[in-house]
Amino acid sequence: MSAHTTDISEYGKEIMNTLQPGLADQVISKLGELDDELPKLIVNYAFADVVGRPGLDIKTREMLTVASLITSGNAQPQLELHMRASLNVGVTEKELLEIVIQMAIYAGVPACMNAITAYRNAVTTFNKSNK
Amino acid sequence: MSAHTTDISEYGKEIMNTLQPGLADQVISKLGELDDELPKLIVNYAFADVVGRPGLDIKTREMLTVASLITSGNAQPQLELHMRASLNVGVTEKELLEIVIQMAIYAGVPACMNAITAYRNAVTTFNKSNK
Amino acid sequence: MSAHTTDISEYGKEIMNTLQPGLADQVISKLGELDDELPKLIVNYAFADVVGRPGLDIKTREMLTVASLITSGNAQPQLELHMRASLNVGVTEKELLEIVIQMAIYAGVPACMNAITAYRNAVTTFNKSNK
Amino acid sequence: MSAHTTDISEYGKEIMNTLQPGLADQVISKLGELDDELPKLIVNYAFADVVGRPGLDIKTREMLTVASLITSGNAQPQLELHMRASLNVGVTEKELLEIVIQMAIYAGVPACMNAITAYRNAVTTFNKSNK
Amino acid sequence: MSAHTTDISEYGKEIMNTLQPGLADQVISKLGELDDELPKLIVNYAFADVVGRPGLDIKTREMLTVASLITSGNAQPQLELHMRASLNVGVTEKELLEIVIQMAIYAGVPACMNAITAYRNAVTTFNKSNK
Amino acid sequence: MSAHTTDISEYGKEIMNTLQPGLADQVISKLGELDDELPKLIVNYAFADVVGRPGLDIKTREMLTVASLITSGNAQPQLELHMRASLNVGVTEKELLEIVIQMAIYAGVPACMNAITAYRNAVTTFNKSNK
Repeated sequence: MSAHTTDISEYGKEIMNTLQPGLADQVISKLGELDDELPKLIVNYAFADVVGRPGLDIKTREMLTVASLITSGNAQPQLELHMRASLNVGVTEKELLEIVIQMAIYAGVPACMNAITAYRNAVTTFNKSNK
Repeated sequence: MSAHTTDISEYGKEIMNTLQPGLADQVISKLGELDDELPKLIVNYAFADVVGRPGLDIKTREMLTVASLITSGNAQPQLELHMRASLNVGVTEKELLEIVIQMAIYAGVPACMNAITAYRNAVTTFNKSNK
Repeated sequence: MSAHTTDISEYGKEIMNTLQPGLADQVISKLGELDDELPKLIVNYAFADVVGRPGLDIKTREMLTVASLITSGNAQPQLELHMRASLNVGVTEKELLEIVIQMAIYAGVPACMNAITAYRNAVTTFNKSNK
Repeated sequence: MSAHTTDISEYGKEIMNTLQPGLADQVISKLGELDDELPKLIVNYAFADVVGRPGLDIKTREMLTVASLITSGNAQPQLELHMRASLNVGVTEKELLEIVIQMAIYAGVPACMNAITAYRNAVTTFNKSNK
Repeated sequence: MSAHTTDISEYGKEIMNTLQPGLADQVISKLGELDDELPKLIVNYAFADVVGRPGLDIKTREMLTVASLITSGNAQPQLELHMRASLNVGVTEKELLEIVIQMAIYAGVPACMNAITAYRNAVTTFNKSNK
Repeated sequence: MSAHTTDISEYGKEIMNTLQPGLADQVISKLGELDDELPKLIVNYAFADVVGRPGLDIKTREMLTVASLITSGNAQPQLELHMRASLNVGVTEKELLEIVIQMAIYAGVPACMNAITAYRNAVTTFNKSNK
């Protein structure tokens, strides 16, 4: 059974919208312009079937994603998005900064410095949208 | 609709077995020891829904995978597996070597040298199993 | 025999201009401002002696380069250039998108998302210049 | 004030021994063979001043480290060490596997497969030493 | 003994200001906005205790840092900063270009091309500020 | 003018043999088994035309290569080879260790730890062969 015969997962959309209100429709619409199946691959696979697995709560999962994106170091827009998502699901600013600092050890100081840039942007955007 | 309610994709298994006879059952059994859903994530998502998409033939797809794995540089076992898979789906030894050499430009000479090691192993194993 | 005694390879320039009209002179002029030998290293080595090797056609080679650049993830300008070059040598928009999607498996979803950004830019530029 | 005038941090050693009994002395002795200051850089800086910061509990920190090491993909021995350390500080086998699976999305399937190898080894070693 | 009880290292500040006049206060002020200990981690650890170690002169150390940042490929702002710092501590423009070109072999041509962009910017800024 | 019409560079061989006695013939023979042009690409391009450029002495160049290979983190055999080569061209054990330690800041502690393993092996081999 392939993505071709499945619908967009409501569960996947729900997770995405928890991370950022409106994210699901935004991603589905943007990716749907390119290819019919692409939205399902992201919503159903990445979000419903992986991020949506039981066994770790969404707050922990977002922290892990932030650690991963700081380490890979070449996904600055996604890093900002997941930092904001972390704040949206209850990670505190202080906890987020701890991840950034810890990554100096494991991914190096330059990766940490790039993450500080993303952190400042994410916190600013988060605070603006929650005023 | 999530992986939890779908079956293992026969189409995904077929693609895996084209890459290497017996690969599907081997992967399903190994991953199934760890988690019930994990085999579906690989077989249904990675193979049926992505590698199995129309639009590029399997030979081209395996060549792209080899280029990607040489570039990432930290998946030597998977590189060998996909080099053998490339040979299994009709990539010639000479074509495979061309990918290895081209990557010296894009991924650097050390990545190319590691790929030469994988290439020698893949060709040896391929020729042994096809005698 | 070293680059110091060789001329700029006409064959290398030809390949570069096939990828993008005018690319050879543009690269030679830009790199020549910095160092006399640098243009030869790129034109003669990278293009004439590696990309210009027989054994794989230019269309396949550009697809491999795109897969490599998506995977390394930190060469967004070169990724866009080689995506446009791919379109210039006959890779279709659809085939290019297939590479982008396949890389989600091998390089991760964030690398795929960055590649989608490059893909949109490359397709837009390509279509504008071919009107 | 530099590392040259400070002592080995007892707090840093304590954290290391929480991650793995005996780790502090083992690392101090191995690194001390090479350079007098090197053990302090690891124990005082990496462990006392970064990993030992308040703001995140050690269990969360180890999970973040595992996510980072899976993503970087080229530190298999450290990945195994921190997977065992995770289990030692209360991360469950199931939670550890969730990190491995989630990283398939963010770091790619090959990184996830390498992490599965490390996971099997770490779980085996952990269970042996806790019998 | 942890960073919590130490002062900002004067030696670390001195090294930073050698690399770029005013850098120490700038970094301390920017990082201090986020966390009280963070400036010490960078000034005391990264600069005083590592970059400030005897055994290699600062010129050689900056060249090594440039080689590392070109290779990692995802720290363009830090690369520019350390290229300017290299020029500030006596690396010549020509020597800096040699590092950039050598990295084409070890990190690949795209990393080298990104480094050329950083090199042009660093040289321009350096020459402006030294007029 | 392409590699096809040039001879193996004597200058490139000389550099290789300076790095490690016998390296040129060993590499030429190993790569020549795979492809006629491949040895020239390495000897003429990588060694004669890049590493052999004037502007930086061979000792500095090897130190830069070591920093690059520690950072990329996925070329352990080449890292050991270039660490031994560094010692062969006059880098001291202490200087080599300084590079390893400095990279903890720029490439992260795990990359530094992998480099320590390579360092121990390189020093042992170097000392054995120079008794």
